[in-house]
Amino acid sequence: MADTIFSKILRGDIPCHKVYEDEHLLACLDLGPLSYGHTLIISKEQVATLDQLSDEASAAIGRVLPRLCRAIKAVTGVEQYNVLQNNGPMAHQAVFHVHFHIIPKPSVDQGLGMEWPAGKLDPQEAGKLAAALSSEIGG
Amino acid sequence: MADTIFSKILRGDIPCHKVYEDEHLLACLDLGPLSYGHTLIISKEQVATLDQLSDEASAAIGRVLPRLCRAIKAVTGVEQYNVLQNNGPMAHQAVFHVHFHIIPKPSVDQGLGMEWPAGKLDPQEAGKLAAALSSEIGG
Repeated sequence: MADTIFSKILRGDIPCHKVYEDEHLLACLDLGPLSYGHTLIISKEQVATLDQLSDEASAAIGRVLPRLCRAIKAVTGVEQYNVLQNNGPMAHQAVFHVHFHIIPKPSVDQGLGMEWPAGKLDPQEAGKLAAALSSEIGG
Repeated sequence: MADTIFSKILRGDIPCHKVYEDEHLLACLDLGPLSYGHTLIISKEQVATLDQLSDEASAAIGRVLPRLCRAIKAVTGVEQYNVLQNNGPMAHQAVFHVHFHIIPKPSVDQGLGMEWPAGKLDPQEAGKLAAALSSEIGG
């Protein structure tokens, strides 16, 4: 995988505003925040997308998420927030090294803006899809 | 915490299109999908938001995420996707029982739509904020 700004941060070649670090990950402030407190969790495994991440590295991110969310709530005073992880340029991934965003939502106009054009699940199609996914995970 | 549609699904009172289940969580298809393959991961811990979730329950979700993402990619053939976890009504949380979304992004117009009005981190303010967050996590 190509070097990114995140590998440089992890190596200490570029400074960051560090919030937390352990053997699996580094959390720091996003340089282009969507709201005050917008924080990144960068995996120390150098892979581009979540599907390539090891179970252990991903579990480590999961383990620290509640603690980071509590800290961000406590410090910003903002109760609502989104956790987001993007894979691929169309999905708004800008740095191709796996990372999660924690983005406080202080008001309707600040933080992450979303469109939610919900469809309707077709029950018959859904049965086949769920079976295919289940079989793929089991296999 | 009040009962939700997810506690009913977890108890088996309401059916779902199940994709995966273990002691910590259940994954099933979203009834109002943003795209084909839109999957939910519902924690078996009955709490409303991620900051209330135990480290173990959150780590278990982290651990299964890469596997679920790989299965969704394999079955849908869609390479790009978003993982999203919403906390609070302004942040687009609709069911107040903690859950993650995996949302395939097959095209610009399908899947999760986002606005990304990035600001610019003020270096001086950022130093104070990172220190406050770091102290809150350590404490």
